[in-house]
Amino acid sequence: MYDTTKPYIGEILRLIRETWETPFVSVRDGLLHKKFSYPDCQPEVDGIGTKGIFHWQKRSFEFAVEDALAMGLNDIILRRAVTYGILPHVFLPEDDHPAFLEIAACFVRECRKRDIAILNGESAVHNNMRGMEISLTVLGFVPAYKENRFRMGDILIGIWSNGLHSNGFSKVRELFGEEWREEFTAPTAIYSELLLDLNLSYDIHGLAHITGGAFTKLKRILPSDADALIIQNHKLDPHLIFHEIFLRGVRDEEMYVTFNCGVGFVISTNLNEASACVSRIQAQGYKADIIGRIVRGKGRVLIGSKFSGKEVEF
Amino acid sequence: MYDTTKPYIGEILRLIRETWETPFVSVRDGLLHKKFSYPDCQPEVDGIGTKGIFHWQKRSFEFAVEDALAMGLNDIILRRAVTYGILPHVFLPEDDHPAFLEIAACFVRECRKRDIAILNGESAVHNNMRGMEISLTVLGFVPAYKENRFRMGDILIGIWSNGLHSNGFSKVRELFGEEWREEFTAPTAIYSELLLDLNLSYDIHGLAHITGGAFTKLKRILPSDADALIIQNHKLDPHLIFHEIFLRGVRDEEMYVTFNCGVGFVISTNLNEASACVSRIQAQGYKADIIGRIVRGKGRVLIGSKFSGKEVEF
Repeated sequence: MYDTTKPYIGEILRLIRETWETPFVSVRDGLLHKKFSYPDCQPEVDGIGTKGIFHWQKRSFEFAVEDALAMGLNDIILRRAVTYGILPHVFLPEDDHPAFLEIAACFVRECRKRDIAILNGESAVHNNMRGMEISLTVLGFVPAYKENRFRMGDILIGIWSNGLHSNGFSKVRELFGEEWREEFTAPTAIYSELLLDLNLSYDIHGLAHITGGAFTKLKRILPSDADALIIQNHKLDPHLIFHEIFLRGVRDEEMYVTFNCGVGFVISTNLNEASACVSRIQAQGYKADIIGRIVRGKGRVLIGSKFSGKEVEF
Repeated sequence: MYDTTKPYIGEILRLIRETWETPFVSVRDGLLHKKFSYPDCQPEVDGIGTKGIFHWQKRSFEFAVEDALAMGLNDIILRRAVTYGILPHVFLPEDDHPAFLEIAACFVRECRKRDIAILNGESAVHNNMRGMEISLTVLGFVPAYKENRFRMGDILIGIWSNGLHSNGFSKVRELFGEEWREEFTAPTAIYSELLLDLNLSYDIHGLAHITGGAFTKLKRILPSDADALIIQNHKLDPHLIFHEIFLRGVRDEEMYVTFNCGVGFVISTNLNEASACVSRIQAQGYKADIIGRIVRGKGRVLIGSKFSGKEVEF
């Protein structure tokens, strides 16, 4: 709960109240009135992790907010849910009022665009911490439940990432030390609107957000008698920063378990729909390609590495 | 979202699934099925703050979990809400599997006692942080809405705190440096069950959880033409640690704006019910006393300091 004795909190509360009336909910008198009759999905909570060290250094608060939203919205979309509310818990290493205010304003702007209510929040000063963190809880509802699972014969479609996104930053810091690159603060792509749209138009079977655990995430939604094959020569080439990380001695396996390597999101459809689906994604301004398929096998993910050319197996 | 590539997460997921069927909700297939028809309250999010430095040092994880739950449950009860679900985001400074597991087990035990579902969660390693943190989102429903506001002539009832609770730790660390006292890891009292019961039996007008901002929190629910008077000679004497903090040079005003000074929660009732209400609280094993009243005034909180005897005004 926002501590209203802090002087800037009144301003933050004024800002977030601008999000309290949406097509989906209305927040009044401490109650959350829902205007939908669909079931809630299991909520999600996630953070931006140690990427927050770079965001704090560079004061790239707008990108930090995008990262936090992306982690939440890209996860909840796996349940085919429409996000109606969030709760951000912002940690800064000092009581920096302009920073807290700017972060709140960014959240309000991004949420108003998407009809998301900022239901509550907390700003915390952690002087025992280097860098910032944003923990974000995301609430959504599910208009139509559908299992998230790859099916035999499915075509895998990849959607290009925006770079490192918000994962693997412990490894990045191990390799680059105190060095900063522009790529370290670039925000994570938010795929949720795109995927809500695709889900209405195509029979999407499986969805995977390539974050922590990266391509091993495909295993979660893979039938035990199937393998997921990812070909080497698809068009979603890893950004230069990934090649540089590889060249600093990270092996293929670690690359594909730690980083998105250019593929931010993977979905599957049947063969008939795959090309149309790729075109639709591209028409919405995202780079996408067919990156593989689901074949008979034994629950493995097999990837033709874009780095060495070798096959990686999980 | 829990990253299932971490080896201990399977065990954590197994544990939290034990909380997915309660009298209030059922979590299945990524959906949150609600068994109640009351409106949701505005959710809350809060953390244990820099008290987590001491919890990590002493590995007092059980108390850290109680602190996190107390911050959430004692806040949401201000809306007279029944908590049905939580989402913990646990930050540790290293990837300490036994610690993550113990924390999850503590949450499960405390939640099962209270029919609370652990709807999801996240475990994060922050090697840029000294100490641990738990951010907790709390969801509840409101069986019967009632405004939270003091009324003219109300009697203020205080409920004793368990010591420092989870606030004022920046000040504590400023005064005590690296020193540790048993009081620094003692858990925050959880008042939610007590207050749900009181709310059913008595006409409770105002409720205030004395945490960040301490006694200034009374101002939020005080009519502008009234003052809240807190007498000096009530029975809820500050714990020794508060006197020691005062003796280290913290002035009365700062004591009452930073610390609970022995009073963890304040409620108000009309004069007729106050004594019976105090007896009921005591019968449930909590120390309580009448600590003041609401009189005509101008929106001030006036406190007879237990430290110097002087009057403190907010």
